[in-house]
Amino acid sequence: MAQQHLDPTDPTAEVVTGDALAAYLRAQATEFLRALRLHRETGGTNGAGPARAQASAGEKGAEESVDAARALRRSARRISGSLHTFRPLLDADWSEEMRPELAWLSGTLGLEHAYEARLERLLLALHRLSGATAFPGQVVSVDVAAGAAAASKAGGPTHPTAPQERGNLTVGAAKAGALLERQLTLARTRAHSTALQALGSSRFHAVADKVAVLASEVPLTPTAPTTDLRPLAAAAEERLTDAIAGLPLVVAGHPYNAEALVHGLSPDPSPHPQDGPWHQVRLLLRLHRYAQEALHGGNMPVDVRLLAAGQALNRHRDASEAAAAAAQAARTPRIAPATAYALGVLHADQRHEVEAARFAFQQVWQKQTVNAP
Amino acid sequence: MAQQHLDPTDPTAEVVTGDALAAYLRAQATEFLRALRLHRETGGTNGAGPARAQASAGEKGAEESVDAARALRRSARRISGSLHTFRPLLDADWSEEMRPELAWLSGTLGLEHAYEARLERLLLALHRLSGATAFPGQVVSVDVAAGAAAASKAGGPTHPTAPQERGNLTVGAAKAGALLERQLTLARTRAHSTALQALGSSRFHAVADKVAVLASEVPLTPTAPTTDLRPLAAAAEERLTDAIAGLPLVVAGHPYNAEALVHGLSPDPSPHPQDGPWHQVRLLLRLHRYAQEALHGGNMPVDVRLLAAGQALNRHRDASEAAAAAAQAARTPRIAPATAYALGVLHADQRHEVEAARFAFQQVWQKQTVNAP
Repeated sequence: MAQQHLDPTDPTAEVVTGDALAAYLRAQATEFLRALRLHRETGGTNGAGPARAQASAGEKGAEESVDAARALRRSARRISGSLHTFRPLLDADWSEEMRPELAWLSGTLGLEHAYEARLERLLLALHRLSGATAFPGQVVSVDVAAGAAAASKAGGPTHPTAPQERGNLTVGAAKAGALLERQLTLARTRAHSTALQALGSSRFHAVADKVAVLASEVPLTPTAPTTDLRPLAAAAEERLTDAIAGLPLVVAGHPYNAEALVHGLSPDPSPHPQDGPWHQVRLLLRLHRYAQEALHGGNMPVDVRLLAAGQALNRHRDASEAAAAAAQAARTPRIAPATAYALGVLHADQRHEVEAARFAFQQVWQKQTVNAP
Repeated sequence: MAQQHLDPTDPTAEVVTGDALAAYLRAQATEFLRALRLHRETGGTNGAGPARAQASAGEKGAEESVDAARALRRSARRISGSLHTFRPLLDADWSEEMRPELAWLSGTLGLEHAYEARLERLLLALHRLSGATAFPGQVVSVDVAAGAAAASKAGGPTHPTAPQERGNLTVGAAKAGALLERQLTLARTRAHSTALQALGSSRFHAVADKVAVLASEVPLTPTAPTTDLRPLAAAAEERLTDAIAGLPLVVAGHPYNAEALVHGLSPDPSPHPQDGPWHQVRLLLRLHRYAQEALHGGNMPVDVRLLAAGQALNRHRDASEAAAAAAQAARTPRIAPATAYALGVLHADQRHEVEAARFAFQQVWQKQTVNAP
């Protein structure tokens, strides 16, 4: 995989110094400020959901606001990641103060979107599990995403609505959808308020001010401008490959190994301890990618294998959290057995998605290693 | 795959005539009578389960009785299958009278075993889903097959019992296990009584008498002794390959295609219509195998690929029926939500097993086709 990266052990390769890091950080800071301005101009409601009705901006404004919030998180992650990977080249006090603030910001801003995506994923799964579109020749048998019908009533993403309902388990799917809709919408509403509060807080303004300074003045150490970045980037890559070496990839490469559901009925299904190492690899992969971006400046070649691996790990994380949400919903007091049954099926379905994502990662990564020169 | 079978289009191959069929049928009839005698000698209680306490024979006798019942079904299936495949070579009236009686017999005798195996499969799955053995370093967290604990209390297969119980979903697994135990044990008890009644009926004695005649005298048509068996065996193989060509093998060959759970929450999850073609292939594969046995007499080479394909299809059938039993149990009135949740997870798990079995079949079959000379 070293082929398209700058190889620090290659004496003929061009040295990349702290100056490149400074340029990268300035660019990300500028991007952060641009996104922040756009976010404020478009209403700063952070988009969809409960706040949509109160938003003074229209549909287009809400969409732009979502994009702006995403761009804000995106650059905050990159600045934070670079501070971590290239720590020895940056002013230590400044770095240590900055990183937790950026983590707080991107975490706070990301939560609303995460709840929205989780609900969307679970309603789509309920739709699929109702088998509405599996046999196009047959009369559509009723159970077309009854849960999604409840969702569209509540102003969520729209899906075809159920023409009628029949059978216990179909009602279960509808009720499960409605329950998840209620719980995740509540969580999203809270996350939305928290994000709005955060954006208006003095803590946020302090971060924004620091990023504004960073856009013109990067606090490098005195020796950084002539120090080679590549050993630090290589160390980030090594942390990634070490963590991947610790993953159970042999098991993951055997389809239908049934590992991901092993805690499907354990007393505390959320979070699954076996998911932790995969989540960790997801973060290390991201740090590796940001380090490569800093090395290559604007000329970062597209590494499709790295992208595919990252997508598999995102899918792993999303499915893991969706499965936990289904299990959590099943603990709601006084739900009907049919609702609980549907949530059990849904939980297992998402845990299978977890397993499928691990398989996908293994396939991508194996190919990567095998094809390397 | 033709390599180790007799090829009817190969002019140098030895002709196999109706005489070989007669020898095969005589051997199977003799085996049937031997199994029947053994079954009567060992108490004829057809083995395990509710009748065990009443059985005059000891543990060893019960085991032998189970083996005898299996051997009885085994030869009944082979006689019945040969009557079907080689119909033109046998007395038509006799064949038409014999086949439904043999089907009735092996169906009736097989039911008790099927319920027993289904319960065993579901309790093992509950055990696995409780994740008891996944992290050997950790304190065993309680949920060790609480369902299986209920099973051993009720005299079923023994498993490690749960030292304590904790958490809603764990109780759910225990209750789900107990519910399945109750329902499937009741079904097995009924099947057992029905089998005992069948073995004592005049209908059964009429079949046994006919098989006794078959052991010495096979009613071949006048021309059969010199007629080549191979075109009829080839036709059986063609029916199999045609049916396999109709299976969605491309989808099945993509791991984690999520097809098998598509009706996981449909109003009538049992039986899944998509399973039908696979069950049909399972039966045709068996007929093909019996036809090959008749051709080869006692010298049937072991075709490991055919065996593996058959095992995958058996697993497919077993998982399909276990999933249906879990869904059925979830429709029991007044069950607790935690029980229903566990049954939902279990249903999805078994549907996933269905998908895994299809993948396994596709892998075996593809290899078979690719490796053929």
